[in-house]
Amino acid sequence: MELWYTEEQTENVRFSMKVKKHLFSKKSDFQQVDIFDTYEFGKVMAIDGLVMVTEKDEFIYHEMITHVAMAVNPETRSVLVIGGGDGGTVREVSRYRMIEKIDMVEIDKTVVDAAIEHLPVTSCRLEDPRVSVFYEDGLEFVKGKKNIYDLIIVDSTDPIGPGEGLFTRAFYEDCHTALTENGILVNQNESPYYDQNAREMVRANEKIKEIFPIAEAYQYHMPTYPSGHWLFGFASKGLHPLDDFNPERWEKIGLETKYYNAELHRGAFALPNYVKALIGRA
Amino acid sequence: MELWYTEEQTENVRFSMKVKKHLFSKKSDFQQVDIFDTYEFGKVMAIDGLVMVTEKDEFIYHEMITHVAMAVNPETRSVLVIGGGDGGTVREVSRYRMIEKIDMVEIDKTVVDAAIEHLPVTSCRLEDPRVSVFYEDGLEFVKGKKNIYDLIIVDSTDPIGPGEGLFTRAFYEDCHTALTENGILVNQNESPYYDQNAREMVRANEKIKEIFPIAEAYQYHMPTYPSGHWLFGFASKGLHPLDDFNPERWEKIGLETKYYNAELHRGAFALPNYVKALIGRA
Repeated sequence: MELWYTEEQTENVRFSMKVKKHLFSKKSDFQQVDIFDTYEFGKVMAIDGLVMVTEKDEFIYHEMITHVAMAVNPETRSVLVIGGGDGGTVREVSRYRMIEKIDMVEIDKTVVDAAIEHLPVTSCRLEDPRVSVFYEDGLEFVKGKKNIYDLIIVDSTDPIGPGEGLFTRAFYEDCHTALTENGILVNQNESPYYDQNAREMVRANEKIKEIFPIAEAYQYHMPTYPSGHWLFGFASKGLHPLDDFNPERWEKIGLETKYYNAELHRGAFALPNYVKALIGRA
Repeated sequence: MELWYTEEQTENVRFSMKVKKHLFSKKSDFQQVDIFDTYEFGKVMAIDGLVMVTEKDEFIYHEMITHVAMAVNPETRSVLVIGGGDGGTVREVSRYRMIEKIDMVEIDKTVVDAAIEHLPVTSCRLEDPRVSVFYEDGLEFVKGKKNIYDLIIVDSTDPIGPGEGLFTRAFYEDCHTALTENGILVNQNESPYYDQNAREMVRANEKIKEIFPIAEAYQYHMPTYPSGHWLFGFASKGLHPLDDFNPERWEKIGLETKYYNAELHRGAFALPNYVKALIGRA
């Protein structure tokens, strides 16, 4: 008997991985959550049929969503993670000893519970005393908050289902208000390659550009996401991801990373022409 | 009826694309060559069941295999392309008016004939008067040639089947001899992500480092290759891919590109830590 998990990356493209065991499956109030043990990628979490986390390459996603902003502003003390129920982003953030407060707002407790049970590699730092987990809608959580967070990380699913509101202008405006003067917003910014992802990439980028004076995007190689070519957005009230980046200062912190490094920090902002054209930077 | 082409990227990972029509299929003396018309990627050429070229993303591969070296040495006059039977590399090389001679050595005429019939997007410049096509083994072709080429591009399949010899030390030594003093060798250098590809990446890199004083690697996002994270090697007798790179000089040539640009040139050499560790640069 062979068991395969197949993801429809587009209606005409499929990505399949051979499964040892289907470990977890639950339809929550918000979405379908599954965890597989696979031969190639170790444990894999899928939400609504899309791979979110694999043990083999989660380090790429979680390092890149965290360290770029932290290297630009090592003065960061207060962090809000919206989404990210697997805990991987909190794990990376919690490695900075100077950070005093990490709020994580995940709408779906099922995701967190499943990660705690099956994905210790990502969920291992949710018990850190600086971490508070809120099972709420991130959209509502951030409303009315003023000048509180130095860093907001939007670690969301695609803008279909519960992640949809996290791609709206109103939400980005609330994030702007919730950020401190040196605040940075990092958001999961989709991918330029397949039309559906590229449309969402463009839409998110356009809205953020209207609200933040600094709004850039950077790329990373994420093999288990469609096309492998994904972006994060970097927006701020003033700090620039390259001009205000001090590699020596970050290196002094002494974190070991498997993907991120100071050279790659700069390199990640060097986007291909077709991507620059899509987001109006050609 | 639905027709799908499925590639076994590893024994536990499959990538599938929906096919409009199977346009061409031939077992040559060297390999199995197929061309499909697909919904997502346009026309696709597969060799021995591995995607080589798709109309949707071939520009990434062919721009990156060509322009990095050309931007480091715009004095290049004489180019040898080994493999590359689809013609895409020759197309990019031929865009430089200063280039006087382009030799292409492809072992398998079936690939070239199929590309001419079905893939005009890549094969369109094979008739350029500066181009000579040799249907020979690249390994033999380069033997005994001395101080002839300013640029050798090894546009090979994976090191299984007819591409195998193009990953050997003897071959790289012959390339070194065939290159002029400012000569550059660019080679298809596999991928760091899946074990099989990573092994070949490491082996090729180690051999080239023993022969060339400058031996670097640079990465690109190639969605239809396994993992989407691929590398080219850049080796030379003296020219350094970053220290000897003059962006203004390249930009003056005035080529329009869809992927490559001067910033990305630098960014492409900024490798993730896990890749640097694999090729001994950590």
